[in-house]
Amino acid sequence: MKKQNRGFFFTFEGIDGCGKSTQLELTASALKAQGFNCVVTREPGGTSISTKIRELLLSPDNKEMHIQTECLLYMAARAQHVREVIAPAVNRGDIVLCDRFEQATFAYQGYGRGLNIGFLREINKFAADGLTPDVTLIFDISVELSQKRLSNIGKGRDRLESEGAGFFRKVRQGYLSAAEADPQKIVLLDGSKTVEELSAEVLDVLYRHIE
Amino acid sequence: MKKQNRGFFFTFEGIDGCGKSTQLELTASALKAQGFNCVVTREPGGTSISTKIRELLLSPDNKEMHIQTECLLYMAARAQHVREVIAPAVNRGDIVLCDRFEQATFAYQGYGRGLNIGFLREINKFAADGLTPDVTLIFDISVELSQKRLSNIGKGRDRLESEGAGFFRKVRQGYLSAAEADPQKIVLLDGSKTVEELSAEVLDVLYRHIE
Repeated sequence: MKKQNRGFFFTFEGIDGCGKSTQLELTASALKAQGFNCVVTREPGGTSISTKIRELLLSPDNKEMHIQTECLLYMAARAQHVREVIAPAVNRGDIVLCDRFEQATFAYQGYGRGLNIGFLREINKFAADGLTPDVTLIFDISVELSQKRLSNIGKGRDRLESEGAGFFRKVRQGYLSAAEADPQKIVLLDGSKTVEELSAEVLDVLYRHIE
Repeated sequence: MKKQNRGFFFTFEGIDGCGKSTQLELTASALKAQGFNCVVTREPGGTSISTKIRELLLSPDNKEMHIQTECLLYMAARAQHVREVIAPAVNRGDIVLCDRFEQATFAYQGYGRGLNIGFLREINKFAADGLTPDVTLIFDISVELSQKRLSNIGKGRDRLESEGAGFFRKVRQGYLSAAEADPQKIVLLDGSKTVEELSAEVLDVLYRHIE
């Protein structure tokens, strides 16, 4: 197994149907084939406690959830996830690939819900124990393509997926703004490209960072 | 029913076995007998979502919970509780009696767990939407008396009740410091007194505030 002193923390972001989860799996396979220890995880989730929090967050039963409650539950799930899984893996030299992380907070709870982004940064720092991704990949697609892809899957929608197009337009704007503000660490990819094209671009970005 | 424009928000605090829950029930009965609309609630809890969060917090299964996760879950439960129950009741003129609130955060998560109190104040303000109790009653007892009373009940201990005496000594110190810092709003009562003596003192404090 190839080892480095400190590992890497890469996050995959974007609105539903953007292809991030497929790309995350392809990336993990490619990295493992290269001999890297690779931890695949997602937010909210990744630990037993965080998965219970995920159920609260996504259950369509909890329609009366206030946006501040939602925000604090995401942060609680992250606090556990970082300390129990992500930080230990990065510290032992692994590569962590995480489906959504802090940029989802800023895009969904900040741009989407309208919570103060400065406060979100502060509370995220507390939750994530100051850990930030080495590289964030944002898979950008239009809200129309997102909704078309979700309809094609045909599964029931969770509490957040049930939001309207206006919400997701704000979330997408949040992701685009983040990529514009920090192009060194946040890479914007065109999620409407083919799986193969995107996978080549993702691996190119990540290998350049690893080497 | 007696009505006022804005109601009152009174909180009952102290370590386990201090008698706060008994006093809260007696107070509610007395106030209802006087014709007041009275809402009795507790933290963590008071709403469907907050009660699910309570289960996560108190389950002895969740031993691996980090203190930051714990803190954020308490805050999430509060965010929902304030907006769904407490604030609407106070705004319609009711008297809300709540078993534990912000002082429990400062005493347990601040003094007990060692989290930064300044940060806890900030996150509490976000969670509670700026709402603070009109009067907080702290029922002070020694950690020895607390543990004796808990043993006498003989029920299984939840995740927090399972902490050692050293933890509860720090929590008690937190409550004592809070009462010392804000004697106008935080009233310290001797929880080793009889139920009847304490009840008379509680009603005296609250009636003076209401009138």
